[in-house]
Amino acid sequence: MISSQAQIGENVTFGKGVIIEHDAIIGNNVKIGHYSIIETGTIIGDNCLIGSHVKLGKSTARNANMISNKDEEIFPLTIGNEVIISDHCVLYHSTIINNQVFIGDLASIREQVVVGKNSVIGRQAIIENQTQIGKQVTIQTGSYITANMIIEDEVFIGPCCSTSNDKYMKSGGKNLKGPIIKKGAKLGNHATLLPNITIGEFAIIGAGAIVVKDVNARETIIGVAGKLLDK
Amino acid sequence: MISSQAQIGENVTFGKGVIIEHDAIIGNNVKIGHYSIIETGTIIGDNCLIGSHVKLGKSTARNANMISNKDEEIFPLTIGNEVIISDHCVLYHSTIINNQVFIGDLASIREQVVVGKNSVIGRQAIIENQTQIGKQVTIQTGSYITANMIIEDEVFIGPCCSTSNDKYMKSGGKNLKGPIIKKGAKLGNHATLLPNITIGEFAIIGAGAIVVKDVNARETIIGVAGKLLDK
Amino acid sequence: MISSQAQIGENVTFGKGVIIEHDAIIGNNVKIGHYSIIETGTIIGDNCLIGSHVKLGKSTARNANMISNKDEEIFPLTIGNEVIISDHCVLYHSTIINNQVFIGDLASIREQVVVGKNSVIGRQAIIENQTQIGKQVTIQTGSYITANMIIEDEVFIGPCCSTSNDKYMKSGGKNLKGPIIKKGAKLGNHATLLPNITIGEFAIIGAGAIVVKDVNARETIIGVAGKLLDK
Repeated sequence: MISSQAQIGENVTFGKGVIIEHDAIIGNNVKIGHYSIIETGTIIGDNCLIGSHVKLGKSTARNANMISNKDEEIFPLTIGNEVIISDHCVLYHSTIINNQVFIGDLASIREQVVVGKNSVIGRQAIIENQTQIGKQVTIQTGSYITANMIIEDEVFIGPCCSTSNDKYMKSGGKNLKGPIIKKGAKLGNHATLLPNITIGEFAIIGAGAIVVKDVNARETIIGVAGKLLDK
Repeated sequence: MISSQAQIGENVTFGKGVIIEHDAIIGNNVKIGHYSIIETGTIIGDNCLIGSHVKLGKSTARNANMISNKDEEIFPLTIGNEVIISDHCVLYHSTIINNQVFIGDLASIREQVVVGKNSVIGRQAIIENQTQIGKQVTIQTGSYITANMIIEDEVFIGPCCSTSNDKYMKSGGKNLKGPIIKKGAKLGNHATLLPNITIGEFAIIGAGAIVVKDVNARETIIGVAGKLLDK
Repeated sequence: MISSQAQIGENVTFGKGVIIEHDAIIGNNVKIGHYSIIETGTIIGDNCLIGSHVKLGKSTARNANMISNKDEEIFPLTIGNEVIISDHCVLYHSTIINNQVFIGDLASIREQVVVGKNSVIGRQAIIENQTQIGKQVTIQTGSYITANMIIEDEVFIGPCCSTSNDKYMKSGGKNLKGPIIKKGAKLGNHATLLPNITIGEFAIIGAGAIVVKDVNARETIIGVAGKLLDK
């Protein structure tokens, strides 16, 4: 079910049951696995490998209990060259995946995200909307990257880390601000980051640490780093 | 592959390869994405939006090493009106999803669960069996809600929280009892709840906190709240 | 789309759109759900139940930023008798799943893994490559089992646990060594294990504990068990 209004490059191979909606643009030498769905307008570069049961370019839906970012700019999901997107991934519209990115099985990336060149998004990792990820970043399996977060180049985030952006927990969508993780910083597995903190360049956060305030460049933080709330 | 013994409402649209098994009942103006599977007897209300690669009304399977709840009442998965169920979700039989609920991508909900009106179940969240979730509850991305748990109205559970119900860890299935989270309580991201505790009304649990005993109404708890085991 | 070069046993049932690639070998009385994909050479024993939207025998892909284990022996995914593999699972090549194993929905198992007889891998659990899992082990929902780890018989791992194998975080792939969990040990939910530690026989690790060094047999550990780094 490939729309006649899609642009398909040379030497593209489709698995069984692939769906390409209208106005999608697919480069040369792309391979798409079985039962994957490429939604309207999605742009895929050359030499990409798309897994099975994948959805690319998903539209947003929400109920009355969820925050809407009405002033977002809408554009197609745009995927560079030599990108690998593994099985069961769900990537939304209005996001940019740069060249040579690898995205593991069962991962999900929301709208208004940029993933820089050669970065790795692990299996089951989730990237929320409006987050910027630099080049050669590693986000390992199962980590949760919140909305409105900045991750600079060469950052390493171990498995099962969790981040947050809403100090007052559902305070109405104002002032959501995720952490900033500066160049080359490393987070051990299962670390927890509070909202609106900065992890300095080449800082090291130990496994299981709870980071509640800024960490200086090249500092090492372990355990429970401080109090959560000012009282 | 739509069973002739299913009841399909007006203005229902099916994606490619949708499977509707016999005795399913689907309301008016429902939209079902590609390659989704609606199992025997499942009931879907009006104006629902079902994603792609979804399974609704799944039967239970287990091996000899898993606990069976043999005295459960069996009935079809029952979904209200204006419910949104996103891509790759798996919902089991004998569960009730009330009106206007939103369920994110890759989430999974077991048997004997009730989700109240207008609640949100985030992406990759997992809800175990025999758990009650009230109205206007938010369970954010990747949180794990154990079996035999009660979550009252307007509770907020941040991303990547974990709950448990078995103090003695595989003690044989007796006395499993998850936490009770009272009305309006809020949990920060990556919080851990021990079995059989009560979080009071409008209590606040900090990010990364480990909660080992009851929390009073309107109390704020941060860090490691106490010892795990009585010795 | 069943290859004429696959060997299919007696009384095998296929859901809609199932894909069986060449040289796959499927035993008797196997049931395969809708839209599942069995890749080249995969071996499935008798009386197995395979869910929908499953991929078995997946090939490995990586980008330039990821470690390759070039000296691994390559062989087909090999699944024993009476194994249950639930919906949306992804299992890689060169792994062995023994008889009566249960694998929950949305789980993923990498290459060079052995899962022993009658063990349970929970929903959304992830097992990395080159890890050995014994008999009658329970790994509950959402737990993350790192590469190069040994889990002995009758171990119980609660939900949402996290393990790691790289003390220096992306130090280049040398000296990766996950924890060893000895026979009958139990981990509470959301526990964190550091690399290269041993949890002794029948030890108990409390919910949310961060375990940074060896734990003796039959010892109980709670809270933050020690410092992460030698300084």
